[in-house]
Amino acid sequence: MQFAPRGTVREVEEGRALMPKFDADGLVTCVATDAATGEVLMVAHMNAEALARTIASGEAWYFSRSRQALWRKGETSGHVQRVVEMRVDCDQDAVWIRVRVGGDGGCCHTGRASCFYRVIETGAGARPDQQLRFVE
Amino acid sequence: MQFAPRGTVREVEEGRALMPKFDADGLVTCVATDAATGEVLMVAHMNAEALARTIASGEAWYFSRSRQALWRKGETSGHVQRVVEMRVDCDQDAVWIRVRVGGDGGCCHTGRASCFYRVIETGAGARPDQQLRFVE
Repeated sequence: MQFAPRGTVREVEEGRALMPKFDADGLVTCVATDAATGEVLMVAHMNAEALARTIASGEAWYFSRSRQALWRKGETSGHVQRVVEMRVDCDQDAVWIRVRVGGDGGCCHTGRASCFYRVIETGAGARPDQQLRFVE
Repeated sequence: MQFAPRGTVREVEEGRALMPKFDADGLVTCVATDAATGEVLMVAHMNAEALARTIASGEAWYFSRSRQALWRKGETSGHVQRVVEMRVDCDQDAVWIRVRVGGDGGCCHTGRASCFYRVIETGAGARPDQQLRFVE
């Protein structure tokens, strides 16, 4: 793909060139949030081609680790994610997209608007073997 | 650690037991957002101990992949992340924490409030070899 090769730490962190750090599997992490509410919708992965297609099209493409396949979000469900803004983090191994969701507004394969529909209690002696709380 | 073993897909996705899916390196992905603004502050990782400590203390602990060490966020910088709410995603391989940041409100090791301080242009023929735009 057409991304710049990795540079020095200073170039990666303070430069204007996109130099993604793909992991051993060739992936960067992508966080998608709802552009209107700020809610985190999902965490997924992009390979170089998914990242390039997202940049060029303004719609989210991912790489499915379980299916080992490129994946245009919403291709079958209609839950297309139109990118309002995309950002990259300091070491360029993660991207954040703020999106508007198409179709009925869903995101999660369970049918919910967000994949993060259960709360983990924290603090005051909360335990790992607690009961999660559903939020929707 | 004291987490439940992985169950069936239905138990993982629709159950009330916390059954984290740690990857081959023993990690789950964690997205931290600012509880007030919704801005994504950072993407990092937690091993079982970091996750358990975050749950019990209500403050963010991570596992540094580069240093291969448990890491209490803000230990030296003062940028402690107090967890307002923690959630887990459908397949339980990622968590989302909404946090209030201590100290001077920073998060990124570069000194910025968020690690996501550069915008990637998308759509309308945007290119992988573009110039990133700084937002702060």
